[in-house]
Amino acid sequence: MSSMLAGLRVIEGSAFVAAPSGGMHLALLGADVIRFDPIGGSIDYTRWPLAPGGASLYWTSLNKGKRSIQVDLRSEEGKDIVRGLVGAPGENGGMFLTNFPARGWLSYDELRRERQDLIMVAITGNPDGSTAVDYTVNAAVGYPSATGPVQVAEPVNHVLPAWDVICGQQAALGLVAADRHRQLHGEGQLVTLALSDVAMSTVANMGHIAEAQILGEQRQRLGNDLYGAFGRDFVTSDGDRFIVVAISAKQWTGLLAATGTTEAVAALEAELGVDFRDEGERFNHRDRLFALVEDYAKRSTMEQVATAFDANHCCWGRYSDFLGMVENDARCSTANPMFQQVHQPGVGTVLSAGSPLRFGADSETVVPPAPLLGADTDQILEELLGLSTTEIAKLHDRGVVAG
Amino acid sequence: MSSMLAGLRVIEGSAFVAAPSGGMHLALLGADVIRFDPIGGSIDYTRWPLAPGGASLYWTSLNKGKRSIQVDLRSEEGKDIVRGLVGAPGENGGMFLTNFPARGWLSYDELRRERQDLIMVAITGNPDGSTAVDYTVNAAVGYPSATGPVQVAEPVNHVLPAWDVICGQQAALGLVAADRHRQLHGEGQLVTLALSDVAMSTVANMGHIAEAQILGEQRQRLGNDLYGAFGRDFVTSDGDRFIVVAISAKQWTGLLAATGTTEAVAALEAELGVDFRDEGERFNHRDRLFALVEDYAKRSTMEQVATAFDANHCCWGRYSDFLGMVENDARCSTANPMFQQVHQPGVGTVLSAGSPLRFGADSETVVPPAPLLGADTDQILEELLGLSTTEIAKLHDRGVVAG
Repeated sequence: MSSMLAGLRVIEGSAFVAAPSGGMHLALLGADVIRFDPIGGSIDYTRWPLAPGGASLYWTSLNKGKRSIQVDLRSEEGKDIVRGLVGAPGENGGMFLTNFPARGWLSYDELRRERQDLIMVAITGNPDGSTAVDYTVNAAVGYPSATGPVQVAEPVNHVLPAWDVICGQQAALGLVAADRHRQLHGEGQLVTLALSDVAMSTVANMGHIAEAQILGEQRQRLGNDLYGAFGRDFVTSDGDRFIVVAISAKQWTGLLAATGTTEAVAALEAELGVDFRDEGERFNHRDRLFALVEDYAKRSTMEQVATAFDANHCCWGRYSDFLGMVENDARCSTANPMFQQVHQPGVGTVLSAGSPLRFGADSETVVPPAPLLGADTDQILEELLGLSTTEIAKLHDRGVVAG
Repeated sequence: MSSMLAGLRVIEGSAFVAAPSGGMHLALLGADVIRFDPIGGSIDYTRWPLAPGGASLYWTSLNKGKRSIQVDLRSEEGKDIVRGLVGAPGENGGMFLTNFPARGWLSYDELRRERQDLIMVAITGNPDGSTAVDYTVNAAVGYPSATGPVQVAEPVNHVLPAWDVICGQQAALGLVAADRHRQLHGEGQLVTLALSDVAMSTVANMGHIAEAQILGEQRQRLGNDLYGAFGRDFVTSDGDRFIVVAISAKQWTGLLAATGTTEAVAALEAELGVDFRDEGERFNHRDRLFALVEDYAKRSTMEQVATAFDANHCCWGRYSDFLGMVENDARCSTANPMFQQVHQPGVGTVLSAGSPLRFGADSETVVPPAPLLGADTDQILEELLGLSTTEIAKLHDRGVVAG
């Protein structure tokens, strides 16, 4: 964990991907993130895939570096405990990140009674508060119809829940921005964030709304072709697969040199009367250009391609599946300080990632495991609510907390 | 623009998607983001798609709310200007966001001479500083082999440059976190962020590395099926398409009620000896369950499906392409305050998105256009460097700046 957000204390009430990943990024930057869960865990505590012992590889991967408290959320006493955590004193406390419905006892107005300067980041599916998840949002925003092989007629869903991940990042950014505002003005606030807004603003930022509106054009499915420049995947003589893109002038001349196609491309330019220094022309005539690189790839082993491409500063990469990445890519190993072998209780030793942000002001950082459910229940009750050992024992006895 | 980061001043030297989108999110939260570009614009200033007048819909969508200065970056005088901007005084200045190679005159050590407390966020492709782009990183991390129809043998690239977008978010978060650190400790720093680290940490956070390592399993291509629970796309009798997912118990019973399959599913549970309240069992036997919903969808119009699903609180959504979203989805219209019709110079009026974060402390926020290249050159030179009108005119005459 970095020390960047050391001192910040965030209470997290969450499920699924967006809110937990946002909280985890805050934790990896050094915030004290306390996740509360109903006794036995939230809806996705045992979500697939599972370790042989039953622990969720999904949940443990998404909740690194947090502390955990188990509370009976249906009881008034349990609600009091959550209210107490959210409102606990401390200059850098009073922060609540959630994707639970922000109404009733979890509404901003109710929780603010505990602490006037409360910062609450509330994630919803749609802006009106109704439910949506990554998969349903993704269906609505256009990408599935532009993704996948040209000959496929159906929409192609993404497997990476990109909207959830981006939403979690936004939530973390929103919370830190609101903290800055509070430091300057002493004022807390409710920050709302809808998953569909995250997706639709991204679609807008990528130019797709302008393209639809100004040009009246639908972005066509292009398979693995890069839009607007040169790029695609190719298969080598030994059956390996790579992608190469040429966006900059240097990448383009490097590709021609590496593949020995400088003259063939010049001839093609003469034949077509175009200048391939213009990336748009490379895209317009990509099928002719792809044929030249295909021919080169077919005659070359992966090793030959790698040598030639690296020597010519091409922008390229090999395809790998998940197993291949873990086994063969040095960037995904402890050779990369972002990755550490972490003992994850209930799972075993796992190659775990810290924050991709590396802060010069930090010396070494340690990648933390996820907590066992309720592992910190007693400690949190004592530390934040000032409860005595006896009081905590009584809460356990009455089933209000567990851990 | 929000007022959350008002006062923060960020100098941005960037190209492509990650760094510009990070800077734009800071601008949308109220930071003064000054983007400098070589005269005539950076490599992607005219990137496709283009408006009829030639302006890039891509570039203008990615650079909203920034100020722009054009500088000859090859000349010593031009470099002096950039150094001056980065080092300009002001409590909340001295922040530099870039994906240019952070070496030579743009290295942290060199730039820090201008300002001891400089915060610099430097984005690279790989952790060693070598080049990688979203497409080459994506090839390496496994998702293309798990995405797309089951019968497709080839990797399926994403069209959304998800790693770039997430990287931009991380950069914004890193900068604001470093600002917090500087406010507390008076200390600036270099923050580095590699695109491949962004991707690989996300793959780790989603549990794929643990799945590969602990279970030795490759995540299989599942088409549009949701992993580990119930979810897929279906076609209605009138040829429309929707996705429905059932993760929570309420979503599951709601789906059965909406599709009239409660009894059929109970019979299936008896036949198979399983309990479909377990989402893993819903996934294991999804083909049998899908058949029931398929049958329902085939007999129902989209309107009937919508009515039944909404009445039963199902988690579902219609598929739409980009044009359809812009034309028909109220969430993607000015009915949603995140979207505004913005006059974008060189393009026309475009439905543009502000930040998806809504801060209670803000009253109304205005979505800003992207600047014309160099639109703010003179103003910035005067304001940050204290240059006189005469001095600025001379810089124009010598071709050191433009605008």
